[in-house]
Amino acid sequence: MTADRGDKGEVVLMGHGGGGSMTDSIISGLILRELGNPILEKLDDAACLTVLESELVMTTDSFVIDPLFYPGGDIGSLAVCGTVNDLAMQGARPRYLSLALIMEEGLPLADVETIIRSVGDCARRADVIIVTGDTKVVETPGGARRAGMFINTAGLGVRDPGVDVSVSNARPGDVVIVTGTIGDHGTAIMNVREDLQLESSLLSDAAPLSGMVMALLDRVPCVHCMRDPTRGGLAAALCDIAGKSDCCVKIRERLLPVKNEVNGACSILGLDILNVANEGKAVIVCAAGDEKAVLDSLRGDELGRDACVIGSVSDAPAGMVLMETRAGGERIVDVPAGIDLPRIC
Amino acid sequence: MTADRGDKGEVVLMGHGGGGSMTDSIISGLILRELGNPILEKLDDAACLTVLESELVMTTDSFVIDPLFYPGGDIGSLAVCGTVNDLAMQGARPRYLSLALIMEEGLPLADVETIIRSVGDCARRADVIIVTGDTKVVETPGGARRAGMFINTAGLGVRDPGVDVSVSNARPGDVVIVTGTIGDHGTAIMNVREDLQLESSLLSDAAPLSGMVMALLDRVPCVHCMRDPTRGGLAAALCDIAGKSDCCVKIRERLLPVKNEVNGACSILGLDILNVANEGKAVIVCAAGDEKAVLDSLRGDELGRDACVIGSVSDAPAGMVLMETRAGGERIVDVPAGIDLPRIC
Repeated sequence: MTADRGDKGEVVLMGHGGGGSMTDSIISGLILRELGNPILEKLDDAACLTVLESELVMTTDSFVIDPLFYPGGDIGSLAVCGTVNDLAMQGARPRYLSLALIMEEGLPLADVETIIRSVGDCARRADVIIVTGDTKVVETPGGARRAGMFINTAGLGVRDPGVDVSVSNARPGDVVIVTGTIGDHGTAIMNVREDLQLESSLLSDAAPLSGMVMALLDRVPCVHCMRDPTRGGLAAALCDIAGKSDCCVKIRERLLPVKNEVNGACSILGLDILNVANEGKAVIVCAAGDEKAVLDSLRGDELGRDACVIGSVSDAPAGMVLMETRAGGERIVDVPAGIDLPRIC
Repeated sequence: MTADRGDKGEVVLMGHGGGGSMTDSIISGLILRELGNPILEKLDDAACLTVLESELVMTTDSFVIDPLFYPGGDIGSLAVCGTVNDLAMQGARPRYLSLALIMEEGLPLADVETIIRSVGDCARRADVIIVTGDTKVVETPGGARRAGMFINTAGLGVRDPGVDVSVSNARPGDVVIVTGTIGDHGTAIMNVREDLQLESSLLSDAAPLSGMVMALLDRVPCVHCMRDPTRGGLAAALCDIAGKSDCCVKIRERLLPVKNEVNGACSILGLDILNVANEGKAVIVCAAGDEKAVLDSLRGDELGRDACVIGSVSDAPAGMVLMETRAGGERIVDVPAGIDLPRIC
């Protein structure tokens, strides 16, 4: 294999996307070494799976985050967490992932290797395996500071027939819980992207929630809703629940768990913390009587030790999210039409 | 929603990727209208599926083709065909697809609509449904002639437990069949991309092969191998079979079905027809005694009416593909290290 050698060694070339021996050097030399398992190693164009349970959950997500590396993670771990968490939020145990890479020509192969290793580490943590994949190479845009990468993962999970968790299931009287501090991921990305040099302690919270969520459902199978507040933040997650459950979600600003440095970053950037993305948190809605059991279960997991109640569900005004502010007033929480933070996930 | 209005009307803006109401205008206003079904309409982050059969096949593919529209298809139909065909080649009946769009800012919404409609048309033709999806928007590269789009589809199919078709199953004495003319897709793309203004009759062959393949397996369940000669062309498909089956594949140049205009385009472009991508063809390997039944079944389908034998399998030299040339000589058929044609699928 020939390649331009720059400061960071070999880089991705268009030929790596051609389906020939250069493509194979990435697949066999790198991907199989880091992610190998008996299903993936067949290197067929599709993976044959055996699933005894009959209720399957399928999801997909593309990750376009810029930059590829940031404090607390990289696009590889994010691509596993995002899809694993989408399955977990449906009450499904994640089992199989596909992994599709679109790499820009010139991307250092050392970066690809770091990202693939990160995919592997995060997949082991989430107890899923990569069973099929695809690699493509595209030209790097003129004027780009550096070559980038997009990753798509699709995920397959299995759900016990008894589980009935859905964003449509919130009922008046329910309590609203968040599993930890909000705004960590979005502010960490903005800090490195805009070179703001704010607190060095701003870290993405990206983490696979499936272990914590499966333990919760074992203990409290009748949880009503679960939703991860990713793109669009807590506001988008709560509006989704209020809208689909046709009820009102009321939260209290003073109950929201927010790290001081995250609060500070949001103030400087002029961001509403409610719209900032999270990648390792969940919103849980349950009956008031289950509140203690849910909190106990969540806090028993490292990822849920800051879990707390942030509000409750009532019947009216249906479809709306309201927040009692620190000053004692009330404001409508809405989803912005566009975006505060592009390419955050 | 505000949008710049150019010649082609509204365009994709970064805000369409933000997860707010602008994103929803694409999902509810466009995607659900064209691709709606009871599973997708739930708009959950993951789709719950019921599959009674226990052997599942999963695959994924990203499509980065440039240009997005070309004679015989567009990136939308390609994204369905590519994934459906990967499932069919494993002997699986395609059932469910995910659809993930990465759109560049400035892409005309009219183009997005055309592509989504094309996805819907092709999915109906292939008898699959889109059950989950994702949309992201990224900046259009500086210097780009126009805004583009990448699509990832992941697919799930079910396979009868009795089916044992694999690229590892070719045996000495088998015959090698191709289901129709080769090189159509790649030459059609090059013709428009490079504005070569060769034959206007150059058309992509992109088509979903699942119907033809399922009918074949019903009639001849003991087919040994199936492989679609996409990126890397017929050469890559045959080398894959020879390598994984540890046998020798011998083809005859004079038996290869090639349209005159495709042959002409390859000559002008200096391309080896064996390396040119196809998106609606399959290589089938079966026992010599099954040859007639296989050809009869394939020719009974519109997509297989030009099916013919192109060679046979022998034991040595194992792992190699040889071609008897028109002149009577013999050459080794190999897979190029890189690519002749970037962004062809």
